Amino acid sequence: MSADFSTLAAFRDLLQAAPGIDQKAQGEAEERNGQLTKPPGALGRLEDMAIWYAGWRGNPRPEINAPQVIVFAGNHGVTAQGVSAFPAEVTEQMVLNFQHGGAAINQLSKAAGASLDVHALSLDTPTADFTQGPAMSEEEVVVALATGWDAVDEKADLLVVGEMGIGNTTSAAAIAHALFGGAAEDWVGRGTGVDDAGLANKARVVREGVAANSGKEGLEVLRCLGGRELAAMAGAIARARSLRIPVILDGFICSAAAATLEAAVPGALDHAIAGHASAEAAHGAVLEKLGKAPVLQLNMRLGEASGAAVAINVLKAAVACHSGMATFAEAGVSDG
Amino acid sequence: MSADFSTLAAFRDLLQAAPGIDQKAQGEAEERNGQLTKPPGALGRLEDMAIWYAGWRGNPRPEINAPQVIVFAGNHGVTAQGVSAFPAEVTEQMVLNFQHGGAAINQLSKAAGASLDVHALSLDTPTADFTQGPAMSEEEVVVALATGWDAVDEKADLLVVGEMGIGNTTSAAAIAHALFGGAAEDWVGRGTGVDDAGLANKARVVREGVAANSGKEGLEVLRCLGGRELAAMAGAIARARSLRIPVILDGFICSAAAATLEAAVPGALDHAIAGHASAEAAHGAVLEKLGKAPVLQLNMRLGEASGAAVAINVLKAAVACHSGMATFAEAGVSDG
Repeated sequence: MSADFSTLAAFRDLLQAAPGIDQKAQGEAEERNGQLTKPPGALGRLEDMAIWYAGWRGNPRPEINAPQVIVFAGNHGVTAQGVSAFPAEVTEQMVLNFQHGGAAINQLSKAAGASLDVHALSLDTPTADFTQGPAMSEEEVVVALATGWDAVDEKADLLVVGEMGIGNTTSAAAIAHALFGGAAEDWVGRGTGVDDAGLANKARVVREGVAANSGKEGLEVLRCLGGRELAAMAGAIARARSLRIPVILDGFICSAAAATLEAAVPGALDHAIAGHASAEAAHGAVLEKLGKAPVLQLNMRLGEASGAAVAINVLKAAVACHSGMATFAEAGVSDG
Repeated sequence: MSADFSTLAAFRDLLQAAPGIDQKAQGEAEERNGQLTKPPGALGRLEDMAIWYAGWRGNPRPEINAPQVIVFAGNHGVTAQGVSAFPAEVTEQMVLNFQHGGAAINQLSKAAGASLDVHALSLDTPTADFTQGPAMSEEEVVVALATGWDAVDEKADLLVVGEMGIGNTTSAAAIAHALFGGAAEDWVGRGTGVDDAGLANKARVVREGVAANSGKEGLEVLRCLGGRELAAMAGAIARARSLRIPVILDGFICSAAAATLEAAVPGALDHAIAGHASAEAAHGAVLEKLGKAPVLQLNMRLGEASGAAVAINVLKAAVACHSGMATFAEAGVSDG
């Protein structure tokens, strides 16, 4: 367990006490942006991203030199309900693949100049089947949150978190259904590739899970319907906030885990942007609820932090322009 | 002038004789893609991009080590019609800015690990005002095409071309109007930032330009309504095709220049993908006519190859996954 908290209530207090954006640095970055050798707004989203990043880093002319990618893995008792096209052993096999450098996220982290850490959370002890009651005890969820919290490198200047966990799109769908309402069907998708019958089964499982764990607030939703890797992602995102490290959210599962923080403490994700909109049906709806427009739309649906890792390159490009370009005055270019 | 052609007809012959994709390598890349440790299709667009790239490179497991960015600059007689918010001197000032490393494309090339070359084409001799007749003589357009053709590094493994030229969104709009019909208003946008009156003026200029140069085929449209930097981009894209170097198209002006090749020889852009959809109003429509879906949509509208340069990172990520990931067999992961 982390030195910083040992209960959900203490974790919530940390979320509430976390720092906001540095408005002075943000304002100075905006001013600098207006002086760069380009027509106003011509770099589009890149300009917004750079100013947002500068504000969170408290530096109007920042650099990105140490992005950190962390992948958390967990197993889910709800796989007993037949919700995945892959057997649960694949979680551990993929962890080995991460460790041996063979997975997509290994290549994508390298391509983005990011470090990659992998944390397997008690793979031998799946969470409880949430159709029968809470997936985790308070102690279990706090341990998982703390694993994430402690995994963040204090020297990182950008954080991306991702996951591996057979069955975890079902967990994410249940979280989204609990937080945002609607029908169970609205939040289930094909995950790694279930068929129509599988999709109907996932909706049933989500419906039963939310019914068995009803009326919970954000962090309780995470405990009751989440999984260890989801809680670890939430813990890491919260830790990044406390360190003013900006975060790029990955796909559906990462976004659902993050949404529990926003539900617990509105504004808790102000230091995070959405790296991409995945092909998993409900991801776009979750991002809409969070008020976050995705940077990329590449029809990806792998998890593992893969979409967010691609987006690191875009943010790096944005920050490189912002901090490296000449101003009109420096370059002797006529300003319109 | 290039050793390879000295007339538009000879250039067209080269376009027609250019090689197609290597179907064997493409097929082998597809097969490899199906064996990688991820659910089928889970990397979405990245998978398509990697297979396309492998096919053009004739290598089922390719690498991207030497991307080349080339920015061409030219001046436009049509600026006499008051079509730009910036004075024509800015073209040369920005060339100096490129040479001194102060522009967005300098930062974006560096961030993408790409070399950057800048070619200024006869800036002291703007093209003729195309509302009065052809913008260029055949000799002028051939020299510009050859500048682009000769600028491509034979050892490059990816090409991005971009432009700088005050007034050139008007030239691109005229090309699009001539190639694709519709109304002049359909193809004009705010460029670097004209107001409503400026927009109406641009539409008038485009209408008059197309009327003064009517009934031309693709390469003649480029000669009569284009500019030197547009012809140079077309020449470079054609040269890349002859060398089987894949191309990422940039924004509206680059895409309009490229469209003249496709109009001249259907399929001439099969080795090219669209890097992004720019905020310039008509770019999306041009890409639709070309049948190319943009990789990025970041609301950029700078030109200079900037959007395509950001997309280099995405293609590199795609190819890194494709060529670097382990197969299910190699990793000992259960295949569903």
